Amino acid sequence: MFMEIAQVLTPEEVRRLQEIARSATFVDGRISNPHNPTKQNLQVDTRISGYQDSSRVVAEALQRNEVLHRFTFPVRIAPPLLCKYAPGMKYGRHPDAAFLPMQPTPLRSDVSCTIFLTDPAAYEGGELTIHLGSRPILVKGPAGSAVVYPSTTIHEVLPVRTGERLVSITFIQSQIVDEKQRELLYTLNEVAALEGLNMQWDNRMRLEHVRHSLHRMWSG
Amino acid sequence: MFMEIAQVLTPEEVRRLQEIARSATFVDGRISNPHNPTKQNLQVDTRISGYQDSSRVVAEALQRNEVLHRFTFPVRIAPPLLCKYAPGMKYGRHPDAAFLPMQPTPLRSDVSCTIFLTDPAAYEGGELTIHLGSRPILVKGPAGSAVVYPSTTIHEVLPVRTGERLVSITFIQSQIVDEKQRELLYTLNEVAALEGLNMQWDNRMRLEHVRHSLHRMWSG
Amino acid sequence: MFMEIAQVLTPEEVRRLQEIARSATFVDGRISNPHNPTKQNLQVDTRISGYQDSSRVVAEALQRNEVLHRFTFPVRIAPPLLCKYAPGMKYGRHPDAAFLPMQPTPLRSDVSCTIFLTDPAAYEGGELTIHLGSRPILVKGPAGSAVVYPSTTIHEVLPVRTGERLVSITFIQSQIVDEKQRELLYTLNEVAALEGLNMQWDNRMRLEHVRHSLHRMWSG
Amino acid sequence: MFMEIAQVLTPEEVRRLQEIARSATFVDGRISNPHNPTKQNLQVDTRISGYQDSSRVVAEALQRNEVLHRFTFPVRIAPPLLCKYAPGMKYGRHPDAAFLPMQPTPLRSDVSCTIFLTDPAAYEGGELTIHLGSRPILVKGPAGSAVVYPSTTIHEVLPVRTGERLVSITFIQSQIVDEKQRELLYTLNEVAALEGLNMQWDNRMRLEHVRHSLHRMWSG
Amino acid sequence: MFMEIAQVLTPEEVRRLQEIARSATFVDGRISNPHNPTKQNLQVDTRISGYQDSSRVVAEALQRNEVLHRFTFPVRIAPPLLCKYAPGMKYGRHPDAAFLPMQPTPLRSDVSCTIFLTDPAAYEGGELTIHLGSRPILVKGPAGSAVVYPSTTIHEVLPVRTGERLVSITFIQSQIVDEKQRELLYTLNEVAALEGLNMQWDNRMRLEHVRHSLHRMWSG
Amino acid sequence: MFMEIAQVLTPEEVRRLQEIARSATFVDGRISNPHNPTKQNLQVDTRISGYQDSSRVVAEALQRNEVLHRFTFPVRIAPPLLCKYAPGMKYGRHPDAAFLPMQPTPLRSDVSCTIFLTDPAAYEGGELTIHLGSRPILVKGPAGSAVVYPSTTIHEVLPVRTGERLVSITFIQSQIVDEKQRELLYTLNEVAALEGLNMQWDNRMRLEHVRHSLHRMWSG
Repeated sequence: MFMEIAQVLTPEEVRRLQEIARSATFVDGRISNPHNPTKQNLQVDTRISGYQDSSRVVAEALQRNEVLHRFTFPVRIAPPLLCKYAPGMKYGRHPDAAFLPMQPTPLRSDVSCTIFLTDPAAYEGGELTIHLGSRPILVKGPAGSAVVYPSTTIHEVLPVRTGERLVSITFIQSQIVDEKQRELLYTLNEVAALEGLNMQWDNRMRLEHVRHSLHRMWSG
Repeated sequence: MFMEIAQVLTPEEVRRLQEIARSATFVDGRISNPHNPTKQNLQVDTRISGYQDSSRVVAEALQRNEVLHRFTFPVRIAPPLLCKYAPGMKYGRHPDAAFLPMQPTPLRSDVSCTIFLTDPAAYEGGELTIHLGSRPILVKGPAGSAVVYPSTTIHEVLPVRTGERLVSITFIQSQIVDEKQRELLYTLNEVAALEGLNMQWDNRMRLEHVRHSLHRMWSG
Repeated sequence: MFMEIAQVLTPEEVRRLQEIARSATFVDGRISNPHNPTKQNLQVDTRISGYQDSSRVVAEALQRNEVLHRFTFPVRIAPPLLCKYAPGMKYGRHPDAAFLPMQPTPLRSDVSCTIFLTDPAAYEGGELTIHLGSRPILVKGPAGSAVVYPSTTIHEVLPVRTGERLVSITFIQSQIVDEKQRELLYTLNEVAALEGLNMQWDNRMRLEHVRHSLHRMWSG
Repeated sequence: MFMEIAQVLTPEEVRRLQEIARSATFVDGRISNPHNPTKQNLQVDTRISGYQDSSRVVAEALQRNEVLHRFTFPVRIAPPLLCKYAPGMKYGRHPDAAFLPMQPTPLRSDVSCTIFLTDPAAYEGGELTIHLGSRPILVKGPAGSAVVYPSTTIHEVLPVRTGERLVSITFIQSQIVDEKQRELLYTLNEVAALEGLNMQWDNRMRLEHVRHSLHRMWSG
Repeated sequence: MFMEIAQVLTPEEVRRLQEIARSATFVDGRISNPHNPTKQNLQVDTRISGYQDSSRVVAEALQRNEVLHRFTFPVRIAPPLLCKYAPGMKYGRHPDAAFLPMQPTPLRSDVSCTIFLTDPAAYEGGELTIHLGSRPILVKGPAGSAVVYPSTTIHEVLPVRTGERLVSITFIQSQIVDEKQRELLYTLNEVAALEGLNMQWDNRMRLEHVRHSLHRMWSG
Repeated sequence: MFMEIAQVLTPEEVRRLQEIARSATFVDGRISNPHNPTKQNLQVDTRISGYQDSSRVVAEALQRNEVLHRFTFPVRIAPPLLCKYAPGMKYGRHPDAAFLPMQPTPLRSDVSCTIFLTDPAAYEGGELTIHLGSRPILVKGPAGSAVVYPSTTIHEVLPVRTGERLVSITFIQSQIVDEKQRELLYTLNEVAALEGLNMQWDNRMRLEHVRHSLHRMWSG
């Protein structure tokens, strides 16, 4: 399962991040994945002052987003990182790594998240492409929106043909490691939220019993 | 989880079984569990003609019982067996075996079932006692009712003090081996049956998606 | 994961099935799912002689298809059924049931399969729509091709606007109940088939050890 | 499985807690579960000085209780909270939530614990009622005793008719998330503790091998 | 875990099998594994009359062997096959396949079994070598003995230098797919068999509860 | 699975540890396992200054060892402890405990590790003996080498007959609790490291997808 989430960032936050990106130093993206020759992009230099700001703005937006929480059951979110694709740049097919080095312990990356920061009309190409079956899914969201997908899914960023693609990316460790279990509990919780108040009290409580039991068992 | 189910047999069926029992030969219950010195009861001689009849009457009643099906998800049910406890007889604490020898393959006993055939006012003692925690649960149902409980739970039949206790017992292999998963799916199915028609179509279908997914996964 | 498989049926087989359909009696599709008011289609009358033929032609084609076997690990395949959608007909959002009644035991439906029998240019609408995330996937394959997808996924057939949509549908019980495990073993087997002969013998055998161990464990 | 544990608190500790309760401020219990209209009780105001004391007394008693440790395999115990039920008060059927907000990370509530602080002769009604099957289990323990049960089980507190019911409640995260596995390891450990010294050394070590292997596997 | 089992065949049965082998036709072993260039051995021609006899003698011996049953929990055993290694013959490193084609359904090979039919003094080399870690385990049992080991383990037969190595091989589907669970239940059952009679009745029944619960759960 | 790892310590580190051991105080090994009468060895007094040094030297050597990391997926390693066996000393059959008391939380011991510190020619007996099946595996490695094995395996140290056996022992908590899963991922990672560069990019990425997915799932 993947999910596109609208308006994760306010227009003001998007502008703030674009501004940081304009003045920031970017380095070769292969720094964080040196063994992948198909990675041809830029990422913000994490030693500059703007990096901390850019990371905090996105992290706070994710923290306050209820859809993201209901869908991903986050326990840890990696510091978001600005990435830039100039014309000709791309990121070939790959899964994300299962674990990211992080203090005090490595973060298990269950869900990957891309937050779009450029108006899709301002660049050609650059679609995030997720391979969930025999039909690729191409995502190019409005600035401020996000897309989340299972980290170990094979995905790629198609070559940017014109313009520039600015995104922030991050990785989420979920309470629920199994993607299918996570989706089923999400769906059951949504049904309960939308229909629970119409139910007889006893039935509603029986549904609570099922939901909390699954949540407990699957977060084991 | 255990469940008492009322009126599994009709009064007519109860009378028929009592009648078979009256004329049948019974043998020492230790035949089917020779290593348990605390088993002191009688079971119908499976070589007599009445045995087949008694077994079929109970099997058909269980097959048509919807509550039993919803609660146990049966795939196979062992031929029910008449058992008799005269005064002083009992069956000490024990779990039932995980597998029963049966053709063409052994039956995995997930759920045990006792069907009561004697009016509880007609005998003293003889309570089926299930140990699910620090407080024993004593069951002595009306004639024609049944009780089902997890087979490997420790349980016992207390000594009969006066009168005679006639029961039919059987063992059920379930689609769902894990007791907790079986109970959760049962509960979710009950909620869907009682509340589903009040839901918006899309929510009802999402609930179907969860129910069928769990059923498939847990019957693996 | 879902997969489109080209040329499951030969053009000759497609013609044969179209011909059977032309002369066959069709009945209201709600026969096999009476509780779903959004099901508005027709299915072949299983009492007519053509039904057996139509079912056998498709079943044999599926049996000989290697891609289908590598992707689904089938243990049982339900008899395929011809379904027809005239203009205005559709099948609303729903998951397929976890179990189908079948002799001698119910079939667990892990993977659903639609085989297209009409040239997609000959009808408008009628797309099979699979909901795997926030972006629906619309499939309308060439005559003779198939698509397989997890049975408990929510899917629908959009209304046919013009022309007629003829398909054969069936349900597959897999050795591997978990969709993710099935996909991982499929992928590992594909890598081994494509790259194994280039490997050193010992490494190839270590990969065999992993593949056979996963196959054994996940078919438990 | 549930378990009643005698004499968790000394009579002196019970008196100390009753004394704290007498002078403490209590607030509406719906503060910690605002969406449950059937919750009608009082809980100690956690901002008052007595709260810390009351919590520490109970926490220390639980920490030193060997039966509780053997049965629940605790890794974290939430700060115990005094709750009071005056006549007419009750807490309708509900499961406890799977996770409690707590620093630095949420606590997964596997086992719920009620410690009784009022002599059962001093109030009518107010039984803690656990629904483990078709027969409710009513618990009303002596002051100083405790009862533990799976958190996501449906349970309730029946209306208090006369007198006042004072309890302390808490929630335990276990090493072993699955209730059945926890019970089996507890039982195997008890058998080993009671019978191990009578065994031949090699058999005793083989039993250790099984116990430690299960403990490791099930705490994964 | 692997296990050597002494005296599976009687000396008389060994002689009978040697005799069958002397007059039987053998074919190139690559018939049953054509893709393995390191397989250089002979196997009995399954079309000759002696094959059925040789298979039945070994199958009956395995059926009556209690150690084998306690250790492997067999549900199906493939027809045993005579294999012969002349000087220079060997079978390079490989795991056995997870599934064997067999009627009516494929047999899942959980445990592989070699029954030795030649006096070890009568041939040099030919050790069955199991790779369970960094130290290979070489097995060359007396005629009539057997060795069982997990099928997907990498193993090999070292080249025979002098004499001839005659064995019968077969493959066992177990009730318990997971090797570790199978070993733990075996060990617990052995402890119960050796120490159970010395235990207090209640403790013995609690141990039965654990054993039968694990057997049920792990045969799911 | 067990593994012997050569040259974990440099000759210089071995000498340093031998020197610390010569001047250190040792205490009766039963301090850390008082209930095991078969434990007859000495362990370094953890209150002396040399203990910290000896522990740090070994811990650093394990931290830098890539083979150990690839094979055990360590998350925590207990402080290594010097142990000494004089003539006549031994440690009878036992498994290691599933959990070690440690701050801030107990360490789950998945893998046990012995680092040899004495030239094997300098003592007779004292073999570490691992019971993985019906054939014990005796390990007596060169000074500076290590052996790792599953903690709950039954193992023993045979009596030292002459000379002195000095070892350092420690316990490793792994990301992957299940020994079989850990071995399969280790093997798949080794194959990928040795053969990945020869593969077509897409196949290599599909293999990455499988490896990272298993790593994520099995570290859940």
